[in-house]
Amino acid sequence: MHQYLMPMTSDAPTTAVAALDIGGTKMAACVATASGPLLRVVQSTLTSGTPDTIARQGLRLIDECCQQLQIDPAVVQSVGVSSCGPFELRDGAIGIIPPNLCGGLPNRDDLPNDWTFLPLESVLRKRFSPVGSVRIANDCVAALHGERAFGTAPANSIYVTWSTGIGFGLCVDGHILNGKAGNAGHAGHMLLSETSDALCGCGNRGDLEGMIGGRNVGKHLGKPLEVIFRDAQGGDAAALDVVKDAARWFGRALYNLTTILDTEAIFIGGSVWRHNEALLAPLVQREIDDRFPALTRDVTVQSTTLGELVTDLGAFSLVMPADWIADWRAQRPWETLRSVPLAETR
Amino acid sequence: MHQYLMPMTSDAPTTAVAALDIGGTKMAACVATASGPLLRVVQSTLTSGTPDTIARQGLRLIDECCQQLQIDPAVVQSVGVSSCGPFELRDGAIGIIPPNLCGGLPNRDDLPNDWTFLPLESVLRKRFSPVGSVRIANDCVAALHGERAFGTAPANSIYVTWSTGIGFGLCVDGHILNGKAGNAGHAGHMLLSETSDALCGCGNRGDLEGMIGGRNVGKHLGKPLEVIFRDAQGGDAAALDVVKDAARWFGRALYNLTTILDTEAIFIGGSVWRHNEALLAPLVQREIDDRFPALTRDVTVQSTTLGELVTDLGAFSLVMPADWIADWRAQRPWETLRSVPLAETR
Repeated sequence: MHQYLMPMTSDAPTTAVAALDIGGTKMAACVATASGPLLRVVQSTLTSGTPDTIARQGLRLIDECCQQLQIDPAVVQSVGVSSCGPFELRDGAIGIIPPNLCGGLPNRDDLPNDWTFLPLESVLRKRFSPVGSVRIANDCVAALHGERAFGTAPANSIYVTWSTGIGFGLCVDGHILNGKAGNAGHAGHMLLSETSDALCGCGNRGDLEGMIGGRNVGKHLGKPLEVIFRDAQGGDAAALDVVKDAARWFGRALYNLTTILDTEAIFIGGSVWRHNEALLAPLVQREIDDRFPALTRDVTVQSTTLGELVTDLGAFSLVMPADWIADWRAQRPWETLRSVPLAETR
Repeated sequence: MHQYLMPMTSDAPTTAVAALDIGGTKMAACVATASGPLLRVVQSTLTSGTPDTIARQGLRLIDECCQQLQIDPAVVQSVGVSSCGPFELRDGAIGIIPPNLCGGLPNRDDLPNDWTFLPLESVLRKRFSPVGSVRIANDCVAALHGERAFGTAPANSIYVTWSTGIGFGLCVDGHILNGKAGNAGHAGHMLLSETSDALCGCGNRGDLEGMIGGRNVGKHLGKPLEVIFRDAQGGDAAALDVVKDAARWFGRALYNLTTILDTEAIFIGGSVWRHNEALLAPLVQREIDDRFPALTRDVTVQSTTLGELVTDLGAFSLVMPADWIADWRAQRPWETLRSVPLAETR
């Protein structure tokens, strides 16, 4: 097995980079050299301990990658991070305050911690100290960096993930937007309906994520989402109504962003979209095409070209040398990357 | 009178810049030297003739400025343009397709022309040929350039004008957004209501401008807008409902943009806002403050610091040397600028 995972053992790398993907339920670490990503390890995100637990778990996963690859951890000289948010700056360093990890936030008594802020940058900088060796972006912002680096996203483009949450990365005039604290792209919290009482985790009623985030689509039908989509595919009227309604709200949000940003291409990922693209795509495209031709003409909507690794690749692209990016674009070495699950106790 | 308008006649300028502000009803031209803008002439926007009428009118107004100032037009070496939109690129050159000027667009049989596209850049470049001597921005985008150059707008800020139409300029990470054809900031066409049947000029129902553009606020009351606001100020319940409703939609739009772009400051201009700021400001601020603290905390909402000249100053800033901008910031020479109306026949 190690043979497979270590194509470079005979010629040990002198420079490597790491990618961390920090999600509310899973965390992944990858290590890569110029020739491509070598290994990806995945573990459930920890939810107890001190607030620096998350960042330290990330560092441990990078070390775990190195150990499995028999690479000296010292050759890993930088780390790109794609993380759930929202972000908050404290003393100029990025941390996160995700409602699904922080038990100290209002209404999260169900979590086994009293966290209100999770430091990332300050912890990672103790290990990766040169300027530019730690770069952190919101997960969907990172994904758009990935689409720009390795995919086909043009200068005015949007990445959106539609899964439990709905998040966006926004690129205008070739510049991927960060905002005052790195939170640009929280467009899932855009208010769209004044009548919906669907409650979002952020406290809004009637925002995009509250209405059609993975947990909320067709809630009144009392069925798992995959069953609703299967029923819709089979022609069940109630299920089809739910799907059409969800696609309509999603399309309206994409129209809004197109008119706000003068976008030319939209790339979509996330489990809700991925499993139901054939059903959703024409409904979503129509919601955009039907409006304000001067702004929507020729706007394209398509799935991410990088699949489920889009955020990992985005995290890599934050810290990779430009010549590596050019090589990876040509070789697409991530297509053979293996993911290894780790037990929680490690 | 000429004495007043020509502070520099004894020492004729060798370099000047022009600003054009092209609106659906009025067009203004200013000419400035390093020491400040010297004169502003205003004329009704022409609506008949060949499609290049608008751009040629702009050039004529610049010449008119020069003539009144007794300046050789050849010293005017560049022009910044703030224009109504939407913009369209033809052969790489910016033109406009404004529904309120183009009689050839659907449903505009009332206009005395069959225009479908008004060239700007290609016409202006015949007179101002060096690269960078013609720069054109949407009027609200230009206004935000003005706020950035001469006002206090920080790196993540929004300019919005609330008058007959509602338009935006958007700045993220210090970069003012253009989009694929210069149309970023058309957020007045953001869909906010799924129940409103208010029809916008763009064809949408339930977008911001359709619901609360100057012509549409409180339409059902059958009174001029200034009367509605005066009645509301006096405590009239129906008028106050209209004002509260308008402020709520406006605030929701600003909240949406704040969460999409991670903004820190919002600057507002336009006649609806200017005349009713005291009544509107607290209602609008509340609509933002009540939501998603991680993104809205400390977001400020205030009137433009540059008054009614904000778009003219923005147009100037597009083509002014940096040292002029620094001087103008210190001296605020625009505060004594005189506007001269011109008859339509000129």
